[in-house]
Amino acid sequence: MENTKLKAFLPLFYIVWSDDLLTQKELSTLKQFIDDQTWLSQQEQKQLMAKVDIATPPSRQQIAEWKTEIEAGLQALPEAKDIFDISVWLAENDKTIIDLESVFTNLELNLGIAGEEAISQFKTFENTFTSVHHTASSFDTQKLTQVLDGEYADIIKRVKDVISRPEFAYETSTDIHVYREKVLQWCQILADENLGNMAYPKKYGGGENIADYFAIMETLSYHDLSLVIKFGVQFGLWGMSVMFLGTEKHYKKYLKAIGSLEIPGCFAMTETNHGSNVKGIETTATYNHENQTFTIHTPHPKAQKEYIGNAAAHGRMATVFAKLMIDGKDYGVNAFVVPLRDKKGKTLKGITIGDCGHKMGLNGVDNGTIVFDNVVIPKEDMLDRFASVNEAGEFESPIPSDNRRFFTMLGTLVGGRIGIPRSALSAAKSGLTIAIRYGDQRRQFGPEGGSEVPILNYRMHQRRLIPLLAKTYAMHFGLQYLTNRFLQRTEAEMQEIEAIAAGMKSYVTWSARDILQECREACGGKGYLSENRIDALKNDTEIYTTFEGDNTVLMQLVAKSRLAEFRKSFENMDKMGMLNYVYEQTKTVIMQKNPMATRKTDEAHLLDDTFHRNAFEYREKVILASAAKRLRKLIDGGLDSYDAFNVAQHQMIDVAQAYLDRLMLEQFQATVTQTEDEGTKNILTKLKQLFALSQIEKNKGWFLEEGYMEAPKTKAIRKLVNQLCWEIRTDAVPLVQSFDIPDSCLSAPIAFL
Amino acid sequence: MENTKLKAFLPLFYIVWSDDLLTQKELSTLKQFIDDQTWLSQQEQKQLMAKVDIATPPSRQQIAEWKTEIEAGLQALPEAKDIFDISVWLAENDKTIIDLESVFTNLELNLGIAGEEAISQFKTFENTFTSVHHTASSFDTQKLTQVLDGEYADIIKRVKDVISRPEFAYETSTDIHVYREKVLQWCQILADENLGNMAYPKKYGGGENIADYFAIMETLSYHDLSLVIKFGVQFGLWGMSVMFLGTEKHYKKYLKAIGSLEIPGCFAMTETNHGSNVKGIETTATYNHENQTFTIHTPHPKAQKEYIGNAAAHGRMATVFAKLMIDGKDYGVNAFVVPLRDKKGKTLKGITIGDCGHKMGLNGVDNGTIVFDNVVIPKEDMLDRFASVNEAGEFESPIPSDNRRFFTMLGTLVGGRIGIPRSALSAAKSGLTIAIRYGDQRRQFGPEGGSEVPILNYRMHQRRLIPLLAKTYAMHFGLQYLTNRFLQRTEAEMQEIEAIAAGMKSYVTWSARDILQECREACGGKGYLSENRIDALKNDTEIYTTFEGDNTVLMQLVAKSRLAEFRKSFENMDKMGMLNYVYEQTKTVIMQKNPMATRKTDEAHLLDDTFHRNAFEYREKVILASAAKRLRKLIDGGLDSYDAFNVAQHQMIDVAQAYLDRLMLEQFQATVTQTEDEGTKNILTKLKQLFALSQIEKNKGWFLEEGYMEAPKTKAIRKLVNQLCWEIRTDAVPLVQSFDIPDSCLSAPIAFL
Repeated sequence: MENTKLKAFLPLFYIVWSDDLLTQKELSTLKQFIDDQTWLSQQEQKQLMAKVDIATPPSRQQIAEWKTEIEAGLQALPEAKDIFDISVWLAENDKTIIDLESVFTNLELNLGIAGEEAISQFKTFENTFTSVHHTASSFDTQKLTQVLDGEYADIIKRVKDVISRPEFAYETSTDIHVYREKVLQWCQILADENLGNMAYPKKYGGGENIADYFAIMETLSYHDLSLVIKFGVQFGLWGMSVMFLGTEKHYKKYLKAIGSLEIPGCFAMTETNHGSNVKGIETTATYNHENQTFTIHTPHPKAQKEYIGNAAAHGRMATVFAKLMIDGKDYGVNAFVVPLRDKKGKTLKGITIGDCGHKMGLNGVDNGTIVFDNVVIPKEDMLDRFASVNEAGEFESPIPSDNRRFFTMLGTLVGGRIGIPRSALSAAKSGLTIAIRYGDQRRQFGPEGGSEVPILNYRMHQRRLIPLLAKTYAMHFGLQYLTNRFLQRTEAEMQEIEAIAAGMKSYVTWSARDILQECREACGGKGYLSENRIDALKNDTEIYTTFEGDNTVLMQLVAKSRLAEFRKSFENMDKMGMLNYVYEQTKTVIMQKNPMATRKTDEAHLLDDTFHRNAFEYREKVILASAAKRLRKLIDGGLDSYDAFNVAQHQMIDVAQAYLDRLMLEQFQATVTQTEDEGTKNILTKLKQLFALSQIEKNKGWFLEEGYMEAPKTKAIRKLVNQLCWEIRTDAVPLVQSFDIPDSCLSAPIAFL
Repeated sequence: MENTKLKAFLPLFYIVWSDDLLTQKELSTLKQFIDDQTWLSQQEQKQLMAKVDIATPPSRQQIAEWKTEIEAGLQALPEAKDIFDISVWLAENDKTIIDLESVFTNLELNLGIAGEEAISQFKTFENTFTSVHHTASSFDTQKLTQVLDGEYADIIKRVKDVISRPEFAYETSTDIHVYREKVLQWCQILADENLGNMAYPKKYGGGENIADYFAIMETLSYHDLSLVIKFGVQFGLWGMSVMFLGTEKHYKKYLKAIGSLEIPGCFAMTETNHGSNVKGIETTATYNHENQTFTIHTPHPKAQKEYIGNAAAHGRMATVFAKLMIDGKDYGVNAFVVPLRDKKGKTLKGITIGDCGHKMGLNGVDNGTIVFDNVVIPKEDMLDRFASVNEAGEFESPIPSDNRRFFTMLGTLVGGRIGIPRSALSAAKSGLTIAIRYGDQRRQFGPEGGSEVPILNYRMHQRRLIPLLAKTYAMHFGLQYLTNRFLQRTEAEMQEIEAIAAGMKSYVTWSARDILQECREACGGKGYLSENRIDALKNDTEIYTTFEGDNTVLMQLVAKSRLAEFRKSFENMDKMGMLNYVYEQTKTVIMQKNPMATRKTDEAHLLDDTFHRNAFEYREKVILASAAKRLRKLIDGGLDSYDAFNVAQHQMIDVAQAYLDRLMLEQFQATVTQTEDEGTKNILTKLKQLFALSQIEKNKGWFLEEGYMEAPKTKAIRKLVNQLCWEIRTDAVPLVQSFDIPDSCLSAPIAFL
């Protein structure tokens, strides 16, 4: 274009023909503009119109030439603020054009291409800060691994060595029968290594070390989860039901053989019609005084035992939970050892075993149904620690109340609610390790003129993964606390420990579900291929939110426990007035300490432990008091408690959730305080802050409703969450490295790019 | 106990020995209490102490007797308000006891058994309102089915008849090779029924009816999703890439054979290193002028085509997307037809096909990798609708801009972003049908003395499933809208339609993911068994959030489109001041109309369409203006746009989310308005209200932050959500019945109890 004045139109032509968000409408706008410029001669107008004619588009070469000219302009004028600046430069500062600034700017507005954003597409940005962001380690991963492993480094290493052996290469066959046999073989190796019987008395070949047993299950969970569940069913459920519900005669008869896997066995509690409501199970165990036997019987098809691990293929015996009937009277749920198959694997008389068939996951575990048709067992096979039938044929028990005895029996099996969340967390750690390592390598999109950038550098990728990484660390320390409380338990504490176990089981398994979902999506198409293991991790842990107690039911148990504690700690609280008083007091106490607290947004305050703890405790207490108040009101109003608890059921879940959030935070803070190594302490501090703030962000609706925080604060918190994610990202790979998962277990090709 | 005075202690003894939440501590408290009662004689004290001695617990019979006496008391005194009232009655109104009311009440407080709640455990409530809640239909399901099916009832029925045939019984083999062959056979049957080519020109054997094609894919999605994807790859991607990117010569050569499945084929776009960033693909198509050919080549291993459906086993040809190179110049992404295998199934020279192997789901689809080693194709196999090489060997295109042409090409394939969400929704409907029917039958727990109750009667079960049922209806109508916009599209609208398609694809596939997760958990252990189909529904749709555009990337595309619209509609908006002005204006306009709006909580207002629409629109506009403001500030501050969009990436997602929420609501409201049948209109109204309110509840943090609502309002909304869930529950089974999914497709035993 010889007429330099007209060159002012170049950028407009380029954008209107090439930007993918502009449409024909913009072409018309530009045409109209040209038409309106009376300072152009007819010939000039004709020349320009030719460039905006939909019937005669410019050639590809013309477009490329325009682009080159515009880029030259930007090179010469790096401080250019908008398209007009470039137009002026291209028009060689022609006064006519300069004088038309407002006219051109108005056109840019109409075209939606005003301002700096429009010209940024012509700049090349090789070193945007998103591009240069990368992994850099600020701490020694070995030191962090030590914090995570605690006192269990030796047993953890021992297990890792075993599961890294060539014979533990993952099974690839989709034939569930092949898979089940492989899992049994692996289980036998673990039994031979004396890992299965780790918690049993030494007298019976065990290690008398339940703490190590937990560490074994957790470490095994970096490997195949079918193996973990098979192992847990055999040594945890079958073996420990004998250990905790039986007496010496049972230990003598069975424990050693259970521990060596000589007798594969089952834990037959759940029935088709009764899962969560264990008290309602219908299998009967009828006492026969003449022959000193019990008859185990399934009264109707839907009372069959269902989902029983180890039943469909391998199990030779089972601890069967059944209602004890003596002379037509029901003595509640008790436990009995019942043989299922002979040594050759043939099902015994009266026993019918079905196969649950293919499942979403855990297909290496042979779950089955069991129906008992008047199966007779000797009297001494009643597991009689908490209840028995005496020589006179009468029921006896140190715990007379059926209700109390039932919960005490179940309470002895609380270990399962420690093992399962720890297993889920290992799976979550595996998923995060794969997703974060992949995100650090996988490049997609980049700045104009620059290389593509690792996806872990993107805000959304960080927001999806890094708070969950922080939560994983929180849950690790929370579960360490639960484990220690369990190991140091006294009788008086059992109720509290059972509540924490039920709660953490739910909290951690739901979180693992969310974590693995994000990991799959974060890994895109690769995450869908079974070779990258997120398939198995997700599908195997899917049932964890249901077995060992359905999470929603467990959370209600936790809430009821918290309500009982609440009722006990507030004297003179019978009247609604009193409840209201306490409720309001709880709400104002902290806030009165700092009237500006609701709006404080400086970073030091937002990162402060006390601010976090106060917020979590406030939420816990107010939700609890509010739920207590609600229930009281409903029941006083005439509702029976069953209906009242249903009406307020969602509040029960909130009570439990808020309690568990506070527990997790408390333990995270305590762990960081005790950490000595500076580098480790620093990174854990960041994670702890991110956990606290992301949980607050998630619950900001509640905090705003209660007036505990106001908008400036919650908005500042979201910004800080983003900032912490950004900062922690540089340590994300070392942080998952610290989980120290064996390569052969991780196995996913995308984690090894 | 002869001393009636002492009978006042009976209830305390009973509770302390049998309640599962009381501990030894309470026994001590009771002992201390007895000790403190100086009005008791020594002998009386001794008698009582004997009942609270941990060493000599009462017998089971004794506990049962105590319970009987207490229940007798309650029968006699139905208005009893607490334990003390029963104690007084048991003590036959002894004056000593009556005078000690405050003392006894204090004890109850210390034990945590004060008030009505403590005695409710002794009452039997056979007809609690939770127990009597049940299914009752308030509308004619056939009429609702008509609303859902719209004008497509005929084609829908036709497809249902086909997929209900015995040969369409689900494949149970876990051998992926067997499964793949079955899917191919099914696909052939569908092709023979002229269902595959429904959208192709009649000239080439088709039905020229893309609307019916969409209905076919949606209805097929009640059956096996591997079949749906195989079908979609063959007839949608492979066939339509030829139809929309090719010209007459290609139609003549290929369309009929594609439609009959004579030529199974692939859509080879994605590469290992380039998924979302399609522009970056590296496969080359180099033009050879002498022999009038193109050479297709994979320059390095990670440029291989990956996840290509139909490739690993059956595909004979593929539309291959590659960079067109002419004389060393890059003309961007173009499409070419490339043969892969001969008629016998043997891979052709230069072609290497790998198998992606086992996946999380969709194992009936043979996804594979393709590497091209200098594969030569004739010039006429370039799909030349939008670009071609002329006789002189020069590049030609009606769209000169590479960028614009690329997006136009992709835009022709927008149908996939309609088919996929509609397919996902069918899967979600299947899951909800199974879960809701099961929840209506499955009974667990119940009131004291009453039968167990269907789990769908529980608040949490309702909160988890029923809002999602409402959302499913919302999305159905939203997708009807998208489909109609697409069918009636004009060139000028394409950009908007593509944005809606990208957005709804993300919105619906993410929602389907959440719905199926809740369905699995709501079905407990049964939900984990593959026979109940939630396994397949979840795992097959898992990849829907990634393919056809990664959801997070698509949402950013939607946001950019919204931002472009925003910039165009606000004149004189170049200055920050102006942006601020518009932002504030947007915020105050609606609120000024009703200054009390933030606190209004009456039901009529909360259920009102206008309140809902205002809230959704407010959120959409403010989030959009806020994002525009933020970006402008970042870029004016010197940040290049790539970094600016990364910093504000989470806000981009919010922009898209708020926009889509509003679209969905709008369409739901419009549909209800047009519904004539009263019963149908009523139930849809409830669902619409629940959708609106549960989305507001979910976003309450944002509304509170913005001061658009205050706590009394958001709390009232949560209550109303619960209430609506409760009311809709009685229609839940008919509502899923209205999806009219064939029994043979549903197939899950738990849906047929």
